[in-house]
Formats: sequence, C-alpha cells, structure tokens
Amino acid sequence: MFKINENFLKLPGSYLFSTIGKKVASFKENNPDKEVISLGIGDVTQPLAPAVIDAMHKAVDEMSKAETFHGYAPDLGYEFLRKAIVENDYRSRGVEIALDEIFISDGAKSDSGNIVDIFSCDNKIAVTDPVYPVYVDSNAMAGKTGDYLPDQERWSNVIYMPCTAENDFVPDLPEEAPDIIYICCPNNPTGTALKKDDLQKWVNYANENKAVIIYDAAYEAYISEEDVPHSIFECDGAKTCAIEMRSFSKNAGFTGTRLGFTVIPKELMCGETSVNSLWARRHGTKFNGAPYIIQRAGEAVYSDEGKAQTREQIAYYMNNAKEIRGALSDMGYDVYGGVNAPYIWLKTPDGMKSWDFFDLLLEKANVVGTPGSGFGPSGEGYFRLTAFGSSENTKKALERIKSL
Amino acid sequence: MFKINENFLKLPGSYLFSTIGKKVASFKENNPDKEVISLGIGDVTQPLAPAVIDAMHKAVDEMSKAETFHGYAPDLGYEFLRKAIVENDYRSRGVEIALDEIFISDGAKSDSGNIVDIFSCDNKIAVTDPVYPVYVDSNAMAGKTGDYLPDQERWSNVIYMPCTAENDFVPDLPEEAPDIIYICCPNNPTGTALKKDDLQKWVNYANENKAVIIYDAAYEAYISEEDVPHSIFECDGAKTCAIEMRSFSKNAGFTGTRLGFTVIPKELMCGETSVNSLWARRHGTKFNGAPYIIQRAGEAVYSDEGKAQTREQIAYYMNNAKEIRGALSDMGYDVYGGVNAPYIWLKTPDGMKSWDFFDLLLEKANVVGTPGSGFGPSGEGYFRLTAFGSSENTKKALERIKSL
Repeated sequence: MFKINENFLKLPGSYLFSTIGKKVASFKENNPDKEVISLGIGDVTQPLAPAVIDAMHKAVDEMSKAETFHGYAPDLGYEFLRKAIVENDYRSRGVEIALDEIFISDGAKSDSGNIVDIFSCDNKIAVTDPVYPVYVDSNAMAGKTGDYLPDQERWSNVIYMPCTAENDFVPDLPEEAPDIIYICCPNNPTGTALKKDDLQKWVNYANENKAVIIYDAAYEAYISEEDVPHSIFECDGAKTCAIEMRSFSKNAGFTGTRLGFTVIPKELMCGETSVNSLWARRHGTKFNGAPYIIQRAGEAVYSDEGKAQTREQIAYYMNNAKEIRGALSDMGYDVYGGVNAPYIWLKTPDGMKSWDFFDLLLEKANVVGTPGSGFGPSGEGYFRLTAFGSSENTKKALERIKSL
Repeated sequence: MFKINENFLKLPGSYLFSTIGKKVASFKENNPDKEVISLGIGDVTQPLAPAVIDAMHKAVDEMSKAETFHGYAPDLGYEFLRKAIVENDYRSRGVEIALDEIFISDGAKSDSGNIVDIFSCDNKIAVTDPVYPVYVDSNAMAGKTGDYLPDQERWSNVIYMPCTAENDFVPDLPEEAPDIIYICCPNNPTGTALKKDDLQKWVNYANENKAVIIYDAAYEAYISEEDVPHSIFECDGAKTCAIEMRSFSKNAGFTGTRLGFTVIPKELMCGETSVNSLWARRHGTKFNGAPYIIQRAGEAVYSDEGKAQTREQIAYYMNNAKEIRGALSDMGYDVYGGVNAPYIWLKTPDGMKSWDFFDLLLEKANVVGTPGSGFGPSGEGYFRLTAFGSSENTKKALERIKSL
C-alpha cells in the first residue's frame, strides 16, 4: 500500500501567495466594479528589454531550421551564458568563479526549493524571520523542520533569527549553531540589505561552525549603496561556506520567462565530498535545462544594450520605491527598505495585525499588499509593498492609502 | 556542522548519458577526422514545426509590450494550454480529465524525478528492468532504494521486473506487492508497448494492492497499433491508482524547448489525502511555471497546422525506425521495438556485453548508441538505437554497421 510523505500534512495552510490570490479573486468577484491595484506579489510589470526580445526572435528562428536547431542543453547550461555570468556578475567585481561552478536553472525559486535534496535530513536550518516562505516550506516537506507549532506560528526544529526595526533588520548570530543558514540579501520581504562588514561576520561564523550559507541574491541589481556587496563571494572565505542563487526575474523582468542560476564553488566541501558534485548530479538527474531560447534571452541581458535597458527598468521601479517611501513617511508610517531593494516594509498603524491591514487595504483602498506575518512570526505587525507596479498605479495606490 | 545527503554517495558512477557524452567527447578529441553519428541519446534533430515557431514569435512580441506582457504564470499552468490538453489528449479518446488535474511543467524528466517528494520514504518501488534511469536514481537520492549491490548491479530495496525477449517485454506481476510501480509505455529503452489488456491487468493489480502507478507516456505519439492505449486513463479504474506524465519533447521536438505535464486525478487518494493536493502544494512551492512563450508553443502543437506538422515529423522518425529494424534484421540481428516507439532494441551479437558493443560501434563504425546494461541488469546483452537522427545519417550509420 503506497504511503504519502506525511511531512506535507504538517504544512500550515497554503502557500502564502496562493492564499492572497484567492482572497483577491473573491474580492474581485464580489466587487466587479472596483479596480484593484496590486503592490502585493513581487511580480514585474514592465515588458522585456528590446535586446532580450531581439535575442529571443533570433533564437526562435534558429529553432526553425535543422542546421541551427537545439535539442537537449548541456547539463550545466550553455557556455555562452555561463561565460557572460562569470564576466559580468563576478569578474567585474573582483570575484573569480569557474564555468563549472555555475548551474543554469529555471529560476531561484526552484533552486532554493530543490537544494534541500543534497543535504541530510538531520541538518538544523536557521532562517531570518521574516523570511521568503520557500526556504522553510521546502525543508518542512523534507521533514527537516520538526513539528509546526500553530500557537507560536513556528516550526519546532528551526532557528528563527528575528529581523525587526529593533535590530535594524540585521540578524544576530544565533546562540545555537545552525548547520544551514538561509540569507536573502537584499532581503525579501523587508527590503533591507546587509553591509559588507555584517555579511563578513556571517561568513566567518559559518566557516567557524562548518555551516553552509544559502545566499539568495535575487535582488542584487537593486543595490544602490556602495558598502552593500552584490555577491557573498566578495567576502573573504565565502567560497568554503556559501552557495549563491541568482535570478533574472527581478533584474530583467523574467518572472514569466524563467531563468536563474546557482553558484557552488568547488572549495565548498563536506569532509571528502564536494557539494558542487552533488548538485551536478542532482541537476543532471532531475532537471533537463532551461530552454535554449530563454538562455539566449539571458545572454542578451549582459549585452551593452541589454545592460542599459534593464538598468532603466530598475531605475523605473526604484523611482516607485522612492515615491512609496516618501508618501508613506509623509502619512506618518514607519517605513523601511526600498533603497537597495524593490520592497517597502512598513509598520502597520496602531499595532494592527498584518492580515487585518491586508483586509483593510483591499476593501477600503482596493490595494493588494502582502501581510508581514505571512513571512514569519516576527513579520507580524508589518506589511510589504512592492515597487513593481506601473508608475501610474503606484501613485494612484498611494493616494488611495492616503485617504484611508 | 552541515551534513550532506549520504544517499547521493551510494549512486553508482554518473548519470548514464553523462558517461556516454564523456566517452564520445574523448573519442572525438583523439579522432578529429572521424565523423561520429549519434543514434544514442534520445534527442530529436528535426526543427520545430512552423506553427510552433509562429506562436513563439507572437508570444515574444507580447512580452515586448506592457499591455500584453506576462509575469508569473498561474500555478498549474495557463488555462489555454490545459484546455487544449483536456480536449486533444483525453476527451478525443473518451477520457474526461478536469483542468485542475493537469500540472504544466518543464518536462517529464523533472516531473518523474520530483514526484518522489510527495511519497513517504518507506514505499517500495517496482521498476521494469531495463528502465529509464531517472526513476531509480531519484528514489535512490531520497533514500528509498536501500543499498546498491555492485556485483548484482541493482539496489537491495527495489523490485526489478525483467522485460526481455523471453517474456516479450511484458513484465510479470511481481510476487512481492510494491507500493509504487513505474511503467513507461511505449517503453524507453526497449521501444516495445503494452497492449490495453496487459495494461488493464496492471491497473487492476495496483487497485487491489493499493499501489500507485507512475505512468510515463512521453512516447505516446509514436503509437501505431490500434490496441495500444495512448493514456493509462483509457483503462477502467486507472483514476484511483495512476499518475500520468507526458512530454512535448518527443511528439513535437521540444527537447531543448522544455515542456511537459503531469495528470493526477482527484480520485487518487491515500486514506483521506488527495495526492493531487500534495502535488499542487509541491508544484506551487518549489516550481514557478514554464515560460509563457513556451506554453504558447505547446498550445500551437494542438492547432490544426501544429497537429499536421508534428505528425509529419513523427512519420519521418518512424520511417527511420523502419529502416533500422529492416536493415538490422537483414544483417541477422534480433531486433525489437520501433513500431510504437522511436527506439530499436537489439540483441548484441555473440552475447557481447553491452558496453563492449558500444565501444566497438563507436570505434569501428563511429556510431553512438546506448548500452542496454546502462538501463538495468536485464538490459545486459542488449543495445538501444534511436530513430531520431536525420534520414541521411541513419542510412549512413546502418551502412557502417553492415560493414563491421
């Protein structure tokens, strides 16, 4: 008799954004005349850059002729894309990454969920709190998080590292040493970022404790301050303790185009075993590459035109972030993030619960945001707005919030 | 201190096709003047159909304008694609599948590897032998297969169901009841297919033993015989015991374009739990959809032009299959498959070992095939050739084999 993975049954409720999606759909159905503006899910709204569009048309044409047709991609991804990454994302910042330390994938969400496969079940994970739900949920599915304690809204076997206004959103080194540490920087959901000195402390701590850091740098392109590192490998010693994940979703608007990559330095060892070789095996066995057309699209992001065009998109979104920060501050809200990231993290007024504020905003202002508590217990009393809307919608949403 | 998943270390050697790739690369390096023809890995060679190309150009253009841009896809995949699947793959054959029983993915390899996530570690799996390596390897990575016994070339906790010329490649019902049964039909690697009566026996057996069948129908489009089912759901009672996986790789040449889907009927229950709901959770948490452009490409496969054009491609490959079958039979080889599938499975001459025949073919004929033993112990003494080459190369390869 077949048996399911019972760990799935421990998961509380549904995936955060599915719940929000259902609430919004139900509101729209009951209020067909209301125009709802979403500053909720971190989805982009600007079209793909012209350089990317051109590259895809060209690649589609290649797929139409036998001489230039592409079947299965190389296991790690096409070299043209990995070379562009080595050059533009790493060498340009003084970091040397080898071609076979890069694994092209269909996005950072898949990678950050699938990476649990290569680690043992008895690792203890540490996550910042609040946190992107995929890190904890994917570990919970693999039975690595103990039991869910509904009254505390946390898992019994996870180390939560609160990041709140009280500690300036810089997590303290935990008392109990974790085995695997998830850090998302610039941070989703708080929109804040660690300075290089702060990150270096974590790298040192991981090396001292033989822990591994899973570093999600999906929002790296939004960094505007000098002393915030773009890659964890800018820190000394990171190659012996860190895995870095990157995405094209936010720097080039690929949320519906799907491309990302994971970097695992060969120096990252567990005893005699190279972690790189384990991921290579997982990648080769349970994945079959990102589409050729999409890998060409990714390559175009690194062309001169691509870089200029995507920089403009990011500036557009960051202008929204500035507008949101400014307007909410003027209204008296406590506002964080939005300087090195496209997320604005605000304190709900009068200590309101996050989901109550979600309902208020949806019903009275017809604006969708994301309740902070959906990202973990320390997110309670906070709320996330994204800068990914159109400029017009962002302004309209702010006016509606003002008149609440 | 972090610990790796030790199950990875139990895996013997590397993924079959990586090994072949390395052998071929080394041969080419040492023999730069030799022209190597690959009838090895099951990769297609014909370009994408014009209807698919047109649909992709159109979708790329949509991504270039804010009004028609597409960000994150719906969790299950776009409805336009799921509707086309319901209509063309199922309703047309008298099978009713609901839209939310279909999960669009980036391919059957990912799905067949990732599906292990939703099952408990103490399920015992049964596989036909020989078998597509991903089923066993993905279970081995999850610690579900016991220990690898190198002398027997099998895992201690897997039920192997030999499929050889002796039983006409129809597996016998196993003595010990398995919990999860993998069936690939039409079969990779043997190229043979189960008749409906044979498959119905398996469905009955699974229902009686409360086992689940993971049915890989990636080669469904190659079926030419009337009494071979295209879907397991054509069998009575399959909805309470089967999961079906499909791919666009072989019916429409999407090996480098990446698209597939999994069907999990809501009637498939484990106690009170719907297996569909578990996969929905896994899919929503650890995957972020196939690209919009690729889902539009998939939709075009079901258009009238798309259907006519992909039928032509399949006829082209199946003509190769016929040529290979005929020529090898004339040379005195024992040949199987190639009627309902693009694979020809042959007995090596004089009881030669599969890898020895691989080396012989590579070195003397400069033709790459796949050693049967790479697919499991009962594949020893067999060899797989694919019909996916060009017509010219296929003929050339056959002439070279003839002159061995």
